[in-house]
Amino acid sequence: MTTPRQLKLGALLHGVGGSTSMWRHPDAKPDASVNFELYKEWVHKAEEGKLDLIFIADGLFINEKSIPHFLNRFEPLTILSALAAVSSRIGLVGTLSTSYSEPFTVARQFGSLDVISGGRAGWNVVTSPLEGSALNYSKQEHPDHGKRYRIAAEYLEVARGLWDSWEDDAFVRNKETGVFFDPGKMHTLDHKGEFFSVKGPLNIARSKQGQPVIFQAGSSEVGKDYASSVADAIFTGHDSLESAQAFYKDVKTRVASFGRNPEEVLIFPGIAPILGATPEEAERKYQEVAGLVTIENALNYLGRFFEHHDFSQYPLDEPFPDVGDLGRNSFQSGTDKIKKDAKEQGLTLRQVALQSATPRSSFIGTPEQVADQLQAWFEGGAADGFMLAAAVPDGLEDFVDQVVPILQERGLFRTEYESDTLRGNLGLPVPENRYSKASEPAGQHL
Amino acid sequence: MTTPRQLKLGALLHGVGGSTSMWRHPDAKPDASVNFELYKEWVHKAEEGKLDLIFIADGLFINEKSIPHFLNRFEPLTILSALAAVSSRIGLVGTLSTSYSEPFTVARQFGSLDVISGGRAGWNVVTSPLEGSALNYSKQEHPDHGKRYRIAAEYLEVARGLWDSWEDDAFVRNKETGVFFDPGKMHTLDHKGEFFSVKGPLNIARSKQGQPVIFQAGSSEVGKDYASSVADAIFTGHDSLESAQAFYKDVKTRVASFGRNPEEVLIFPGIAPILGATPEEAERKYQEVAGLVTIENALNYLGRFFEHHDFSQYPLDEPFPDVGDLGRNSFQSGTDKIKKDAKEQGLTLRQVALQSATPRSSFIGTPEQVADQLQAWFEGGAADGFMLAAAVPDGLEDFVDQVVPILQERGLFRTEYESDTLRGNLGLPVPENRYSKASEPAGQHL
Repeated sequence: MTTPRQLKLGALLHGVGGSTSMWRHPDAKPDASVNFELYKEWVHKAEEGKLDLIFIADGLFINEKSIPHFLNRFEPLTILSALAAVSSRIGLVGTLSTSYSEPFTVARQFGSLDVISGGRAGWNVVTSPLEGSALNYSKQEHPDHGKRYRIAAEYLEVARGLWDSWEDDAFVRNKETGVFFDPGKMHTLDHKGEFFSVKGPLNIARSKQGQPVIFQAGSSEVGKDYASSVADAIFTGHDSLESAQAFYKDVKTRVASFGRNPEEVLIFPGIAPILGATPEEAERKYQEVAGLVTIENALNYLGRFFEHHDFSQYPLDEPFPDVGDLGRNSFQSGTDKIKKDAKEQGLTLRQVALQSATPRSSFIGTPEQVADQLQAWFEGGAADGFMLAAAVPDGLEDFVDQVVPILQERGLFRTEYESDTLRGNLGLPVPENRYSKASEPAGQHL
Repeated sequence: MTTPRQLKLGALLHGVGGSTSMWRHPDAKPDASVNFELYKEWVHKAEEGKLDLIFIADGLFINEKSIPHFLNRFEPLTILSALAAVSSRIGLVGTLSTSYSEPFTVARQFGSLDVISGGRAGWNVVTSPLEGSALNYSKQEHPDHGKRYRIAAEYLEVARGLWDSWEDDAFVRNKETGVFFDPGKMHTLDHKGEFFSVKGPLNIARSKQGQPVIFQAGSSEVGKDYASSVADAIFTGHDSLESAQAFYKDVKTRVASFGRNPEEVLIFPGIAPILGATPEEAERKYQEVAGLVTIENALNYLGRFFEHHDFSQYPLDEPFPDVGDLGRNSFQSGTDKIKKDAKEQGLTLRQVALQSATPRSSFIGTPEQVADQLQAWFEGGAADGFMLAAAVPDGLEDFVDQVVPILQERGLFRTEYESDTLRGNLGLPVPENRYSKASEPAGQHL
């Protein structure tokens, strides 16, 4: 490539937010999670800022302790499809679990979104960390962590096989001869594995980006290996440059060890910037948001990571309680870190809960300061791009209006979309159809 | 009601069509089934014509003998969601099978579409007639006809229960007090049945039409009972007024026998009109379409209804072969009728195949003639509305431009939408939430 390396940007569209209390902010629209007009405005703003993609997270179980956004929100495939119709360049990425769905349906729905959007779909493959999901899906038990990843591996193999059901020139559509398709370019999969038997072919052909972009966010050892072996992009979270650098190096090394090109697997740390005209104003905004959180909310929020454990039974101002193995089978890497930090830093339950509910972002400051930080992470081997989550109600708008222009001036971010597909904008190659490959001379694209 | 009874209209958006060969028509766009711009034009045209709804049919198994539209087409929920974003009044109805999906996911996706569209979603509940579906869904065998309907009955009970998870005033969203929702108005379902165990609650609340409209198209005895007991609207097919009248009377009687109001279950025969300035021009257009069908295509098309049976093994010009019970476990009522007609009328295989592939519609003629026919069916106790399938590439456009104005002049069809929800336009009541009901005085809507 002759152009200098530029960073990529995604925006997590997260309704009233991933926190317990952002909905109480004076500027918040408290129905944001089910407000389609607002989602449309956000996607238009993100596209105005030339962002690579928007991202819709998900979950399959709620109870009365869930945070507001989780209780009542859009389902990813439906909201992404609706947003496809009102956007033209931005990527549309959504979470869907391989533990409680069928690969034929999911390959088809993402395939259809990919065609509707003209090649802008992405799938964040997750294995469902929440035990309760089994209760909504007629299952005796939630599969354990290792099994969930074995299922996910086979599942993605099936989905990718189905996506290649039709070679790109399979549909001849010759009105004169009456030949609609070339049967030699339609392929049944005939997959028979440990968890799935899927014959195929899929009843939708590939979009112009070939296959939807695969995101993954595993951060346990098993999860990192899975992501490194299959993902096009990895979504991660770090509270320091050092931690992000270590993750970046670790994952890129794993990617290479799987025989893949590390430049073709992009790492996106999540960021939740809070901007102010001065550092003091930014800090004040952070304190305002943190002040909205009650200790009850914080305890509920914390409990979700530990299989919905009830933390209200412990004294608040004594050391973080010993909860044993709780959390190992859900958000493993996150709960391990909480336990470790609490022990090493001697934190109380109250401190742990409030920190979890309103983590102090590394990206609080003036637009220049935040741009400096992003540049340091990008150039310092910690990130290929960033996934932006709004920490205040106007977080996306502020970022696009104030930080994006600085990144553009510095040559760190595009001023125009390079492509109209997600792969094109991310600089990822179009995967060749496995069947077309076999019959073509290496390196040639007919 | 003080307004006179008016007929309802739906349009099946069916890509290159439900026939083997319409794609070969000179005016056809042969990529129609995966052409989003075209679907957008169609939905805009349908909304211009004040139609009640558009309808997306579906299937879960293809092979090399499938008709062109089935091979490569949009998946219903994704295309309906995309179309929701570019329309404002028209209903959005899609087929989804209860035999190969999970009620939590499907209730959620239709619930999300319903909220995104502001109360315009409808679900055509099917049980999957195609044996092959099992092969794409890791199943040993396709459940038999009776079992599929038992599954469907329990499934819909679960879905409807999940849709009522949140009472309409459950979300308080009081920023001052910090109360986001009223826990007394959130309801877990705790369903445990023969086929499903689903705890709930669903993580999306009701739209302003309460619940998506339920369509059903069963026409076997079991199917008609199922439709009569649960559906808001029934999609059916008849080649004569008499047959449609008999079905209408039968189903309305069944509806009443289930203790339901027959006026609140609408019956929509499918029609495939072909319009001409003169009867001769219309007939010429029909012959043009029929002439595009080859005998090979017709045999393939016929075979699909008989569990993908290969009819090319029989002599074409001898009586329709005895295929025994084949077809009983797939399109039961359709295959029974084909066998019966062939026997009674002494038809050859060639005649049966060509008739199946291009059935002669009762609605071929001038716009006035077609409007007369519709009026006769509507006023003659055969239909509450019609589901329009294009028999020629511009079928929808022709119908909206030429037949709708006649129906409007006669007072048989609306000139403006009455509502912005599908239930509102169909004249169906908003189903009360089962939990709210209990605590309210009868007949009151708080």
